[in-house]
Amino acid sequence: MTATTAGPAQASPEDVELVTALATRSRVAARRLALLTRAEKDAALHALADALDAASEQVVAANSEDVERGRSQGMEQSLQDRLRLDPERVAAVAQALRDVAGLPDPVGEVVRGSTLANGLQIREVRVPMGVVGMIYEARPNVTVDAAGLGLKSGNAVILRGGSAAASSNRVLVEVMRSALTTVGLPADAVQLLEGGHGSVTALMRARGLVDLLIPRGGAGLIQSVVLGSTVPVIETGIGNCHVYVDAAADLEQARAITINAKTHRPSVCNAAESLLVHRAVAADFLPVALRQLCDAGVRLHVDAATAALAGDVPTEPATDEDYATEYHGLEMSVAVVDDLDAALEHVRRFGSGHSEAIVTQDRGASRRWVAEVDAAAVLVNASTRFTDGGEFGFGAEIGISTQKLHARGPMALPELTTTKWVVEGEGHVR
Amino acid sequence: MTATTAGPAQASPEDVELVTALATRSRVAARRLALLTRAEKDAALHALADALDAASEQVVAANSEDVERGRSQGMEQSLQDRLRLDPERVAAVAQALRDVAGLPDPVGEVVRGSTLANGLQIREVRVPMGVVGMIYEARPNVTVDAAGLGLKSGNAVILRGGSAAASSNRVLVEVMRSALTTVGLPADAVQLLEGGHGSVTALMRARGLVDLLIPRGGAGLIQSVVLGSTVPVIETGIGNCHVYVDAAADLEQARAITINAKTHRPSVCNAAESLLVHRAVAADFLPVALRQLCDAGVRLHVDAATAALAGDVPTEPATDEDYATEYHGLEMSVAVVDDLDAALEHVRRFGSGHSEAIVTQDRGASRRWVAEVDAAAVLVNASTRFTDGGEFGFGAEIGISTQKLHARGPMALPELTTTKWVVEGEGHVR
Repeated sequence: MTATTAGPAQASPEDVELVTALATRSRVAARRLALLTRAEKDAALHALADALDAASEQVVAANSEDVERGRSQGMEQSLQDRLRLDPERVAAVAQALRDVAGLPDPVGEVVRGSTLANGLQIREVRVPMGVVGMIYEARPNVTVDAAGLGLKSGNAVILRGGSAAASSNRVLVEVMRSALTTVGLPADAVQLLEGGHGSVTALMRARGLVDLLIPRGGAGLIQSVVLGSTVPVIETGIGNCHVYVDAAADLEQARAITINAKTHRPSVCNAAESLLVHRAVAADFLPVALRQLCDAGVRLHVDAATAALAGDVPTEPATDEDYATEYHGLEMSVAVVDDLDAALEHVRRFGSGHSEAIVTQDRGASRRWVAEVDAAAVLVNASTRFTDGGEFGFGAEIGISTQKLHARGPMALPELTTTKWVVEGEGHVR
Repeated sequence: MTATTAGPAQASPEDVELVTALATRSRVAARRLALLTRAEKDAALHALADALDAASEQVVAANSEDVERGRSQGMEQSLQDRLRLDPERVAAVAQALRDVAGLPDPVGEVVRGSTLANGLQIREVRVPMGVVGMIYEARPNVTVDAAGLGLKSGNAVILRGGSAAASSNRVLVEVMRSALTTVGLPADAVQLLEGGHGSVTALMRARGLVDLLIPRGGAGLIQSVVLGSTVPVIETGIGNCHVYVDAAADLEQARAITINAKTHRPSVCNAAESLLVHRAVAADFLPVALRQLCDAGVRLHVDAATAALAGDVPTEPATDEDYATEYHGLEMSVAVVDDLDAALEHVRRFGSGHSEAIVTQDRGASRRWVAEVDAAAVLVNASTRFTDGGEFGFGAEIGISTQKLHARGPMALPELTTTKWVVEGEGHVR
């Protein structure tokens, strides 16, 4: 992680100078990128993909250094897995760039427009943000993804990946910059910020030079960026997601959704962390559900009512902290609630506004859930795992916004743009 | 002003306690507001309007106290004018609430949606932000406008007006709260924050309790809120707007647009502050234009090339600071530029991203202006004064955003909402 809950490091004058110079080069590149046609951008994306394929050996070698360093420093196995690039994974990130080339260009889309009574023609048109900063952890695929989505949406990107991926990121960015130059585009469309921790703080404060910051990673990283930035930030990916099994649920369906939401990919933000069960169906639902969760390797933190129904399934008493925790793994908190109101209140208290699912056959209950739960996604009879840019058909995803400003839920290319009003007259005055 | 460029005041524990209690009440009210039908909201707006009409005498009396206190403390005449409410103005703000009732309800609008290949039905629906804070100066009409737009968009509002309007705001808010109660809605839908300066800081830091802050006022107020807030902010209304007279301009049209943009209402943010003239037409355009500006009472800050064409029109040498200044009055900076590129570079350097107008008959020049100027509104052969929610046909305006995130340009009801994804399945799992 480049930042922690302890708060951002101080930015030294040298940090500020470094970031100012870097971001100023990005701004110059961004002016050029904003004017590119879709054909030019797509050709560049293919050039980047081809260059990465050609440099696969070099990328894997640099990555091996990172993985080896991580291992020698006792990096967790799951983090090593996310850090590792083999030839197949390099080919996959290259292919992802080609897939982005295939997506529609958001820039230039006319969002709305009209001719006013006085003949003035107005239209709101999508344009690039300008310079977008990404702060993320040791996942080298994000380096390529972010560069590709930035390029397609006409933005220059400043990338700040976790230091554990330093060698991988350096090579990936060098390869992409060189490919950009080959097709006649500014290399500074993609830049890597490599200074110390203070340079991240300087990036967070580069208001006026950087148009948007997107942090991706754990809660500590994201909170640090959200609270320490003067540059506009989109908060992503904190997901303390619930599955609520209503009195009128199809219990088979409810069990399938619970198991899927918890165990399909427990490390991601749209995995469920907490199971709420209506008291009326608890005795029918929970014994089998708890057994299935246990068999799937899920550690269970439960309230007293749940414990009483657990039989020989091992459970631990749940605290408020459990209900507030995004486990990111095979753990789940469970509570029996008196009714829908209690479920709504629990979600209000502990939810993070990401994805909240109800399982019910009762129209009234689903209608209230959809209306009253305040979250990026509210799901009825579907797994929380569906809150995803790929699943939604966006073709790409730069993160899942859990804030209300600008973007909410899965973010793809349009969310990396802003708009501009174009007003055309013939000498119109008021 | 409630805050200055010196930076926000410290929030004491009492300030934080005050704001936490206030915002928590707002959140409770917001849950109720989010579920209201359009009919219920419109009825409430009419009730508010009627109550204000009925309390007109009381409002004017309270306002007189404010104006009298302002006068005795040497408040500028123009600020006194903005502060003053007479019976006609009270009737006008009441009528504005009825006009808002006539506007479409943004809440519930389906922004996009589809049925996925797996049968899952997804739709993105507009929902209220929740709790919106407004920090503004001594303009009591904003108190009523913000309450009305907040109510219509289903948001609870926390109002922090300038202390110079304290008596007016207290009465206005009391009248509106009482009217809300009469129609069975929570009074806390509209709350006034009346603590000291530290309470404003506490409001700016109430992340999680307040969903959005909108500062309206001078540059110092806005910068203080933008830089000091952890709550998401929309930056509004800093307008260092330019009119660029191109080589291919219709010079009569250019003069009419210049005069209108500068003098129609010089105190507002979409008034032009700076005039740029292509060297090729400077000698034809400027002598008459400068005379007209001078006759309209405009003080002129000019470069050497302009001074040489000013004849007997009095001018002063312009500094970089002049070119960076939003005068908010009858003053204008003027520069002769070598070509379109120089005009674009000048706007890039000094513009605030609000409204930038070109006057030209040359398609190539207007096309480049529209594409290359990075601003909320780019205008061709039209006065900058058209960047306005009313002119654009929005029926209302809560401010003009000069940031790129969430909203850009005039903001009305939809900009006070966010969206929520509703995902409906029949037991769908991944």
